[in-house]
Amino acid sequence: MCMGDDVNCPDFEAHFRQFKEEINPGRRGFLGAGLIGAGSFAAGGLSLVTPALAQTSAAKAPAAPSYHYLPANSDTVHWGYFSKTLAPKVEVDSGDYVTIETLTHHAADDLERMVQGDEGAESVYKWTATEKGVDRRGAGSTDPAVYKVGSGDGQGVHILTGPVYVRGAEPGDVLEVRILDCKPRPCANPEFTGKSFGSNAAAWWGYHYNDMLNGAKREVITIYEVDASGDRNWAEAVYNFKWVPQTDPFGVTHPTIDYPGVPVDHGLTSRNYDVLKGVRIPIRPHFGTLGVAPAEADFVDSVPPSYTGGNVDNWRIGKGAVMYYPVSVEGALLSVGDPHASQGDSELCGTAIECSLTGTFQLILHKKADLAGTPLEEMDHPMLETQSEWVVHGFSVPNYLGTLGATAQSDIYGKSSIDDAMRDAFRKMRKFLMTTKGLTEDETHSLMSVGVDFGITQVVDGNWGVHAIVKKELFSGRA
Amino acid sequence: MCMGDDVNCPDFEAHFRQFKEEINPGRRGFLGAGLIGAGSFAAGGLSLVTPALAQTSAAKAPAAPSYHYLPANSDTVHWGYFSKTLAPKVEVDSGDYVTIETLTHHAADDLERMVQGDEGAESVYKWTATEKGVDRRGAGSTDPAVYKVGSGDGQGVHILTGPVYVRGAEPGDVLEVRILDCKPRPCANPEFTGKSFGSNAAAWWGYHYNDMLNGAKREVITIYEVDASGDRNWAEAVYNFKWVPQTDPFGVTHPTIDYPGVPVDHGLTSRNYDVLKGVRIPIRPHFGTLGVAPAEADFVDSVPPSYTGGNVDNWRIGKGAVMYYPVSVEGALLSVGDPHASQGDSELCGTAIECSLTGTFQLILHKKADLAGTPLEEMDHPMLETQSEWVVHGFSVPNYLGTLGATAQSDIYGKSSIDDAMRDAFRKMRKFLMTTKGLTEDETHSLMSVGVDFGITQVVDGNWGVHAIVKKELFSGRA
Repeated sequence: MCMGDDVNCPDFEAHFRQFKEEINPGRRGFLGAGLIGAGSFAAGGLSLVTPALAQTSAAKAPAAPSYHYLPANSDTVHWGYFSKTLAPKVEVDSGDYVTIETLTHHAADDLERMVQGDEGAESVYKWTATEKGVDRRGAGSTDPAVYKVGSGDGQGVHILTGPVYVRGAEPGDVLEVRILDCKPRPCANPEFTGKSFGSNAAAWWGYHYNDMLNGAKREVITIYEVDASGDRNWAEAVYNFKWVPQTDPFGVTHPTIDYPGVPVDHGLTSRNYDVLKGVRIPIRPHFGTLGVAPAEADFVDSVPPSYTGGNVDNWRIGKGAVMYYPVSVEGALLSVGDPHASQGDSELCGTAIECSLTGTFQLILHKKADLAGTPLEEMDHPMLETQSEWVVHGFSVPNYLGTLGATAQSDIYGKSSIDDAMRDAFRKMRKFLMTTKGLTEDETHSLMSVGVDFGITQVVDGNWGVHAIVKKELFSGRA
Repeated sequence: MCMGDDVNCPDFEAHFRQFKEEINPGRRGFLGAGLIGAGSFAAGGLSLVTPALAQTSAAKAPAAPSYHYLPANSDTVHWGYFSKTLAPKVEVDSGDYVTIETLTHHAADDLERMVQGDEGAESVYKWTATEKGVDRRGAGSTDPAVYKVGSGDGQGVHILTGPVYVRGAEPGDVLEVRILDCKPRPCANPEFTGKSFGSNAAAWWGYHYNDMLNGAKREVITIYEVDASGDRNWAEAVYNFKWVPQTDPFGVTHPTIDYPGVPVDHGLTSRNYDVLKGVRIPIRPHFGTLGVAPAEADFVDSVPPSYTGGNVDNWRIGKGAVMYYPVSVEGALLSVGDPHASQGDSELCGTAIECSLTGTFQLILHKKADLAGTPLEEMDHPMLETQSEWVVHGFSVPNYLGTLGATAQSDIYGKSSIDDAMRDAFRKMRKFLMTTKGLTEDETHSLMSVGVDFGITQVVDGNWGVHAIVKKELFSGRA
C-alpha cells in the first residue's frame, strides 16, 4: 500500500500529505524516541548522537524539515560506481526526509517479473542495438575498444539512485542516515500483482565458484518471490536456471555474467521450477549499497566497500537502522542501491535476493566542529546503529583507495581476506569502545572477548568484510 | 538451589529422587517434545534424529534410564588433554542421565573466590612443594627436564571431568549429547555466599596480544562476578590485575601464563577495582570444551578443537542444546570442561568468563548400522542443534590429527586461519544441506547465500573456528 511513497498510486498526493503530517516532530516516534532534536533513542539515551550534539545540529537545520521524493529512472540513477563528479539529483537540508526508489541490477535475469510495465525500471534497462537507457555501466575505461560506446567496462555493477546533495556538508563532517522504511517494489506486470521478485546469482565471483563438487564451474540464477504486501515474512524460490551465453543488443556475447544488465533471453535457458520446495527464506529487506562519494578518485567501482560505506552488504542496514558516514566531499553525495530482500552473513554465492526496494530516509548532518567530545568525533568508517546494537565494519583494506594508490581499484581484488578484515574489525571495535565508552585498552580487550560478537559480513566484494556487534544493553547499568 | 545435582546440599537425596522422578519419560519434556523414544522436537519433527532412528536407538537401551552423578575432584578430572588411554570415571548406558561438575582451569587466578572451601576444587588445585593434586597437566612431554615430575608440560590447559564411558559405543557410531542443564557452581567461601566467579585472561595467546597500542605486551586478568541464584542474567567485573611473574610451589617462575593452575599470589599483584563500571555482560553459560576422545593419538592437547569436538568454544553449546559427535574409540569417552559464564563470537582475548559450571546431560548412542538414510549418516564432525538452529563448525584444519601427521599437535598452531575455517564451514554446511535436506548443490549455494549466517567462533585455539547457522524455520513449510 502506498504510504505517500508510491508516485504511481492514484491517491499519491493524499497519502503524501498524510505521510508528511505523520513525520512531523513530536507526532511520530522513531526508534522509540523523537526525531531530530531528540537525538537519542532506546533506554538510557544510548544514541551515538548526544542530546547536545542533536540540539546543535538541529539548530543549524531549517526549523521544519522538507520531504523529497526521488524516483528511480534513467535520469536519476548511475550504474556501477560512486563519483564525486556527478550532478546531484536532489538537494536536501539537514533533517530532511527523502524517499528513494532503488532498482536491483539483477532485474534483467527476469525482465517479465522485474522490469516489464515498470516505467522507471524500463527506462534504466532500456538497451537497443544503438543505445542504452543508462550508457555508462561501471567505473572502468570509457575507451570504446574495451566494451562499447563510452559506457564503462563493467567494473562495478550496482544501480545507484542519487546522489543526494546535503547542503552544507563538507569533508570531516558526519552524515547520519536514518532508515525509516524499506519495502519491496511491487511488480508492475499485471500478471504478478501483489508480488515482488528478486534474483540470486551464484556467480563466478562467488565464494563457492572455484570449490564446486567434481571441479564443475557454472553460474546458476534463482528467482525468488517476495510478498509485496508485507503479510508474509518469508521469500520462496520460483525457479532457477543455468546461465548460458547471452548476446546483448549490441551484439556482444557474454559467456559469463560479466557486464551489468545483460537481458536474459529465456528462449535460450532451461527453467527448473522444482527448486527449494517448501523452503522459506526469512526476509531481511535492506540496502546492500548505501554510502557517500569518496574523494580519492573520480569514478569508484561500486563493488568494494570502503570507509565511505558503499557496498557494505550487511543485512542489518534495513528499516530502523541508522548509518553514520564520514563525509568525504562537498555535499556528501549520498547514493543508494543494491537492494536485497534477504541475505545471510557472508553472501556466499556472490549475491543476495536482489530485489528492488523503496526506502525512506532522514538525513542529518553533524558538522566537524561540533563533534569534539562526542562518540562521532573520530568516526572515520561506516558505523551502524540499531535500536539494540552498535556494529563496526572491518574490511580487508579499510581505506583501499587511499592505501593502494593508483591501481587500488584493481589491486583490491587480490587482497580479499577474512583474516585481514577481522584484524580491522578488532581494531575498530577497540577504538569505538575506548573513545565512545571511555574504556581503557585492557577493559576493551576483556569486553570484546566476553561480550562482542564477530561475524562474516561478506566474502564476495573484493574488499571482504567482518563486522563486530556490541549490544547496547551491556551499558544499561550505567548512570 | 539444588535440583538433585548438588551433593553438598543437605537435602540432596530427596532432591535427587525428585529429579529422577521428573526426568522419567513421559513426565518431562525436553526441547518441546519427549525424551528418548520421541526423537524429534520443535515444529515439524525437525530433529536430526528421525523418529525411526530414535525408536531403534531406544530399543537398544535399557527400558528405564539410570542417573549418574560425577563430581569434580582430583580423582575424576584429567587436566589438559583428551586420551583414549584413560580409565572411565563412570559408565553409562545409552539414554542415561549424568550430572557432571566442571571446574574452570583459571580458578587459581583468585583462589579465594574460586577454590577456597570447595573440597573438589581444592583437591584439584592442590599444589605443594612436593606434589600436585593433579600431576599431569597437558598432553606434552613427561620428561622431567621439560617441566617437573612427569606432569605434562602444559600443552593443553583445560580441566576436564570424565571420561564417561558409553556402553556399546564403537567407532563409526554417533553420540548425541543433550544438555539439559548448565548452571554456575556457587562459591564455597562463606564470604561470597550466593555468588559465583569467573576469570577472563587477556593472555599471550589472545588475538590482540601482538597488536596492542604502542607496541605494549602485557597479560591482564579480569575477575567477574556471576549471580549463582540465576536471578540476574548478567555478569559484572570485580577487579582486574596485570600478570606479574609468579613462582609456583615447585619453585618455577612463570613470567607469563605458561602452565595451568599456577596459583596467583595477590601479594605481588596490584588489583584495580575501577574496571568496567556499570557494564553488564549478558550471561551465556556453556561448556567451551565438550567432546569424545580421538583415536589418532594417546594424549591430545585439549586446546585445538577437532572432528571429535573438544574445545569448540561456541557459546551456543549450553542449556537446551544438543551436540552430535562421531565416536572415535570404544566407549566414546566423553569429557567436559572449560566452563564459561559468557563468551562472544571470536573469544578474542584468549578466554571467556571462565567460571565453574555443573551440567546435566542425557547421552544417547546411535549405532553406525542404524544411521543409513538418516541425517546422521555421514556426520564426521561436531554438530550443534538447538531448538531453532543447526550449526556446523568449520576449522582451519578439520581433522588436524589425521591430516598433519606425527607433528600435528605442534604444527596446528601454525595453521591458524579464519579464511581456512570459513572454507571448511562452507563445505560442511553444503554437505549438511545436501545430505540432510536433500537439496541439490545449486540449491545449497543459493540457500547458503540468502539464508545461512557465518560467524567467527574463536581465533585463539590454534585450530581457528567459523560456524555456519541455518535456522530450522527455513524448512517449516515442508510437509
